[in-house]
Amino acid sequence: MTRLKLTLAYDGTRYDGWQRQGNTANTIQARVEALLSRALNAPVEVHGCGRTDVGVHARTQVCHFDAPDGTDVTALLADLRRYLPEDIAALALETADPRFHARLSCREKTYVYRVRTGPARDVFTRRYELFLPETLDEAAMAEGAKLLTGTHDFRAFTNNRRTKKSTVRTVSGIRLTREGDLLSLWFTGDGFLYNMVRIMTGTLLEVGEGKRRAGELPAVLASLDRTQAGPLAPAQGLTLWEVLY
Amino acid sequence: MTRLKLTLAYDGTRYDGWQRQGNTANTIQARVEALLSRALNAPVEVHGCGRTDVGVHARTQVCHFDAPDGTDVTALLADLRRYLPEDIAALALETADPRFHARLSCREKTYVYRVRTGPARDVFTRRYELFLPETLDEAAMAEGAKLLTGTHDFRAFTNNRRTKKSTVRTVSGIRLTREGDLLSLWFTGDGFLYNMVRIMTGTLLEVGEGKRRAGELPAVLASLDRTQAGPLAPAQGLTLWEVLY
Repeated sequence: MTRLKLTLAYDGTRYDGWQRQGNTANTIQARVEALLSRALNAPVEVHGCGRTDVGVHARTQVCHFDAPDGTDVTALLADLRRYLPEDIAALALETADPRFHARLSCREKTYVYRVRTGPARDVFTRRYELFLPETLDEAAMAEGAKLLTGTHDFRAFTNNRRTKKSTVRTVSGIRLTREGDLLSLWFTGDGFLYNMVRIMTGTLLEVGEGKRRAGELPAVLASLDRTQAGPLAPAQGLTLWEVLY
Repeated sequence: MTRLKLTLAYDGTRYDGWQRQGNTANTIQARVEALLSRALNAPVEVHGCGRTDVGVHARTQVCHFDAPDGTDVTALLADLRRYLPEDIAALALETADPRFHARLSCREKTYVYRVRTGPARDVFTRRYELFLPETLDEAAMAEGAKLLTGTHDFRAFTNNRRTKKSTVRTVSGIRLTREGDLLSLWFTGDGFLYNMVRIMTGTLLEVGEGKRRAGELPAVLASLDRTQAGPLAPAQGLTLWEVLY
């Protein structure tokens, strides 16, 4: 078998997230696997670098799968481009090292959360951002972002309560950028817990709205208690932006 | 009555175009009129600067209507922002000169037609561009664009055969710009006939594909014959970009 590396982009609006689950075929993973299995005439399992939630988008989702030796990679990429639905795009397909693993080999991921602060919605990008026509205290948000950056136990920032695995992660940077009415929060790290980026965003938005002070975020981290962090920001504003190996 | 100038943006994907027609409420004009009539408690007629076709978008559609004197413009704009569907945005609402007419006062309009030349679809902008994964001869297209620029009888470039009005228009500029895989055709002029921008685009794309030579476009113009021009380019790639007064 030959290991292949596939780079996808998708508009997650109408999908039940990345990961195949139970009997729903309406996940991106299930769609891609179905197409590859048909094209290669054998069951194919696709491993993504990150599981995006229901409604979350990807500008870059890297995955790997194994194909029979001698598979025509160019023809397979053309098949993907021809038969994938128009909200899933195959950006690249290439032969990878047999030890390449989309999730385990991943060195760094960047997510962006976009907030349009108004006054009017952008009709062309509305599916990919949160519309929040308010004035946010961005200096306070930047201060909060700094306090969340670094290596911490992020247990307070995940909705996965059952995990017995480590909830320590390293967030190497949280940057805020603004372009007109659009505020973008960029999260870079070695990995993120379930819902972690959206809960960090929800918490930082509370700071921006003056509902909580940036200075209390170290205590929220230390509490290891989900109820101390802010709400889960809506999925549609989140995009998996970049994956580095 | 007070004349008001309303600036809208819309994603035209799910509408039957701008103009109210017969008994369909599924046009942008009908939606806006219904909302304004309810808000002002009187029938309101909205006049747009241009009738966009079924599926065509607007980054800027300027319109005018009359409201009772003393109407609270700020409150009315807030109503529009609250109650318009999320694919129609009210960008601005302001008091205008009583003689202001969205269409007749318009000095210049710019449309953009976007073509993604591949190899992969952009999942986030797919609704607003034509996907045409081909290599186009852009030098030839630019030459053709130059030959269509100017004051001409554009009868060969309209699907409205019944008109007895003048089909002479001045196209002051057709520019091609490229950003990565995205080729944009910018059309600026004092006014455009029914389907004219899309037929000019379809014709220039034929030039880019080598199906016809740029040099024959003066003869196409001179023929005044719709069958001599190229096909109607799909609506989704077209956006009314800017309107000047």
